[in-house]
Amino acid sequence: MSRERTTLRSDMGWSDATRIRVKGLDLMTDIMGRLNLGDFAFLEIQGRLPTASESVVFNAMLATLVEHGMTPMAIATRLTYLGAPESLQGAVAAGLLGMGTTFAGTAEGAARILQEALAGMPNDIAQPELQVLADTIVKRCREARQPIPGIGHPVHKPVDPRATRLFELAAEHGLSGKFVTLMQGISTAAERTLNKPGQLPVNATGAIAALSSELGISWRLSRGLAVIGRTVGLVGHIAEELRYPLAQEIWERTEQESSSHITG
Amino acid sequence: MSRERTTLRSDMGWSDATRIRVKGLDLMTDIMGRLNLGDFAFLEIQGRLPTASESVVFNAMLATLVEHGMTPMAIATRLTYLGAPESLQGAVAAGLLGMGTTFAGTAEGAARILQEALAGMPNDIAQPELQVLADTIVKRCREARQPIPGIGHPVHKPVDPRATRLFELAAEHGLSGKFVTLMQGISTAAERTLNKPGQLPVNATGAIAALSSELGISWRLSRGLAVIGRTVGLVGHIAEELRYPLAQEIWERTEQESSSHITG
Amino acid sequence: MSRERTTLRSDMGWSDATRIRVKGLDLMTDIMGRLNLGDFAFLEIQGRLPTASESVVFNAMLATLVEHGMTPMAIATRLTYLGAPESLQGAVAAGLLGMGTTFAGTAEGAARILQEALAGMPNDIAQPELQVLADTIVKRCREARQPIPGIGHPVHKPVDPRATRLFELAAEHGLSGKFVTLMQGISTAAERTLNKPGQLPVNATGAIAALSSELGISWRLSRGLAVIGRTVGLVGHIAEELRYPLAQEIWERTEQESSSHITG
Amino acid sequence: MSRERTTLRSDMGWSDATRIRVKGLDLMTDIMGRLNLGDFAFLEIQGRLPTASESVVFNAMLATLVEHGMTPMAIATRLTYLGAPESLQGAVAAGLLGMGTTFAGTAEGAARILQEALAGMPNDIAQPELQVLADTIVKRCREARQPIPGIGHPVHKPVDPRATRLFELAAEHGLSGKFVTLMQGISTAAERTLNKPGQLPVNATGAIAALSSELGISWRLSRGLAVIGRTVGLVGHIAEELRYPLAQEIWERTEQESSSHITG
Repeated sequence: MSRERTTLRSDMGWSDATRIRVKGLDLMTDIMGRLNLGDFAFLEIQGRLPTASESVVFNAMLATLVEHGMTPMAIATRLTYLGAPESLQGAVAAGLLGMGTTFAGTAEGAARILQEALAGMPNDIAQPELQVLADTIVKRCREARQPIPGIGHPVHKPVDPRATRLFELAAEHGLSGKFVTLMQGISTAAERTLNKPGQLPVNATGAIAALSSELGISWRLSRGLAVIGRTVGLVGHIAEELRYPLAQEIWERTEQESSSHITG
Repeated sequence: MSRERTTLRSDMGWSDATRIRVKGLDLMTDIMGRLNLGDFAFLEIQGRLPTASESVVFNAMLATLVEHGMTPMAIATRLTYLGAPESLQGAVAAGLLGMGTTFAGTAEGAARILQEALAGMPNDIAQPELQVLADTIVKRCREARQPIPGIGHPVHKPVDPRATRLFELAAEHGLSGKFVTLMQGISTAAERTLNKPGQLPVNATGAIAALSSELGISWRLSRGLAVIGRTVGLVGHIAEELRYPLAQEIWERTEQESSSHITG
Repeated sequence: MSRERTTLRSDMGWSDATRIRVKGLDLMTDIMGRLNLGDFAFLEIQGRLPTASESVVFNAMLATLVEHGMTPMAIATRLTYLGAPESLQGAVAAGLLGMGTTFAGTAEGAARILQEALAGMPNDIAQPELQVLADTIVKRCREARQPIPGIGHPVHKPVDPRATRLFELAAEHGLSGKFVTLMQGISTAAERTLNKPGQLPVNATGAIAALSSELGISWRLSRGLAVIGRTVGLVGHIAEELRYPLAQEIWERTEQESSSHITG
Repeated sequence: MSRERTTLRSDMGWSDATRIRVKGLDLMTDIMGRLNLGDFAFLEIQGRLPTASESVVFNAMLATLVEHGMTPMAIATRLTYLGAPESLQGAVAAGLLGMGTTFAGTAEGAARILQEALAGMPNDIAQPELQVLADTIVKRCREARQPIPGIGHPVHKPVDPRATRLFELAAEHGLSGKFVTLMQGISTAAERTLNKPGQLPVNATGAIAALSSELGISWRLSRGLAVIGRTVGLVGHIAEELRYPLAQEIWERTEQESSSHITG
């Protein structure tokens, strides 16, 4: 009753009869024909345009998140599209809903660890200090019996080629700083502590966590990058489903086999 | 029981220990550092890389779909994030679910009309023939008492500046063909038939429908382009909500006012 | 700017320190311990309590919608739960999103046809008049080359036992009126017109459409009944998935087979 | 490649031309006309029919979860329905997605604490032992600086009348056992430890956690009960939105105010 009202305010976008502004830019002259979709995503999230270097690295990060083949999310999207082809948005939404802790949580976790460890630290923090932080992080994860996010991969061994490429692009474009060093230090510390030399390299998730931190993107939005990338991939799966349908066959096989102990 | 099994087959992506392939390309060398997110979306949907011209036009189309300010979808995303901040994917999914017939259906409808009208027609179909098709389309919509998709706008008058810019970019890049001409012919036919000269120009939706048809994208995937663009925008709204929250205030005001006839 | 504000108003529920009211009733004394979940759904949708007869019939209608075995929705829910077990709500939402035109649209379509045909008609409309309406409905569907909603079933032949049971319960409880007669008349008309005697009985969907119309529920909410019933079933599938997981196996098989033409 | 296949198996439901079985029961004779929707939910989740007492208590638990007035979920559902009225399932799904840690997580947390504390304990565990367990739980939550789930309420003071009613119904129906006692012990321990006598009673969430534990329902499905109940409520909000629309007004006000610092 006596609640104090706060004013609603947003700077995302605004338009009238002749003007359309997005984040303070003119949509027609500043964005269309100039910005690619990844750059626009950077603008939306960070509130400013990326530099040319940031554009390359940010688009490469998103590229690693687009297409992971026939994941549970992709199958869920295809099955949902089978039932509701008139609501393509629902099929994509269904797929996105599978991006939880199991598949998308580690990027968030890794970015959080990096950002919390380096909060308030200078950009030129020395390598030995970073290794001390890395050791502490590994020690804490082990004490809490939690996996160390951002390192190792069940399939991509001995290195995750996406991480290698991301770090390479970051170095080429002058975006490899303290977060990258700390992430690599975590890998070194984990291999030493767990006595698994060469077996726990930084994976794609860890590299994305490090680079998004270099770009100043909050760990709270890490999952948002995954959602953006994967949406592109899920629309791609619907495009393929239109040409070569899978969903009906998966459904029929599953239905038949799962009740065959009753139906004989 | 005697159902014939068909083989499940997909060419979206595939990987082993050292290789990661997407649509037949190598993720690390062919995509990362080379393709922007819009180009990757084109690859996913069309199964081939865009040309430089297609890249510009396709990214510009997506750009018109990213940010429409404080839409119902954006508000739904923010309210959902308020309740489930740990599941950012759910908040984006909630927003996407509002992209139905009211807000996203017309692009689909316009693209379908264009593609069905020109199915099997040669690329060099003559202007007079296109105008006959346009007249027929307008006549049919009127007979069915349905709105003519892709023309007119309640706010952007007398022209929708996004459509102007999209047609300009398409012309510059050699991608303005029979679909663009037909869409413009529909506007002309509608203005003449409804006696509203200069009041029913092609809108952003109609321009996107025409250009996606020029790029060979099926009308069934029109809504997919909207979903891709809007996902970027919804993640942007979450980024702003983290800095300047709105959702709690909207909730409290709505709850208070809507029950004030009871609570007094 | 000069937009006129309308007042936000809702009578769904309201509470203060000691009272909790729902639709004008006291939650603790009028609802808890007295109403079952189906009755509460009736109250929410219709704004009044069901009679004892309405309660039986309405709960039976919902019961037909709960569990249809291993549907695409159930599989999508299980796959989503695999990826995001911490967000059970997302897994259920993913399953619900498959309830589109293919699986849930016909109940809506059948209810709409019945309600539009009988709008303004007296409850004691004579049988011959109803048969004329039924003939007209069948004729219109055929002319529009649309399936006649609510009749026939690919598996449940010659009759759909759920429809039989629903009509039986409605008759027993005095809830079988003009909508039931019209629905049955549509079946008769279709069998005569298409020369398929005994092959196009009213199916479960048609019976639900007829009974929800008898109960005064708008066709616009038909899909809502399906959503309520199916939510119960999807939570049931998650309960089973916790005990006997399927999703991981479906994923692995699908991933392996769909890329086997590449991986060999 | 050499992955071992496990057989897909489900006992949820199955049908052929004349029979429809759900969880081993005949849908037409055992369920329709006999089970209300809450009982059916119990069958789906627990794999057996509830007793008459369990039916009353379980339906009362669900009843507390249906309608909480104009919540963020309800507003999100209405806004989504505004954009996609043809996909009612999407509007309900959007609302469900807001049932995250903020609004639904505490029931899960409370049930987990109760079930883990009493795992393997006999049903006749003595009151003093239960109070020791309660003290330990409160101590651990405080040490971890986490809120104690299931006690206290910002509005319903000094007691949450729903909890009072749920405990009353459980006692009447012989379903008040060790979990109820432990939950009440947690309240006592918290009030003593935090020196807030009479201020931290068990709330509705805590009572539901205790009663679902008495019924043998895993804490992993606690959120499922909330999802079932709230789905009913969200369909109710759509029913009201059809009669007295709010969403358009909320949208327009929010859009206007949030950009008024730019538009003037």
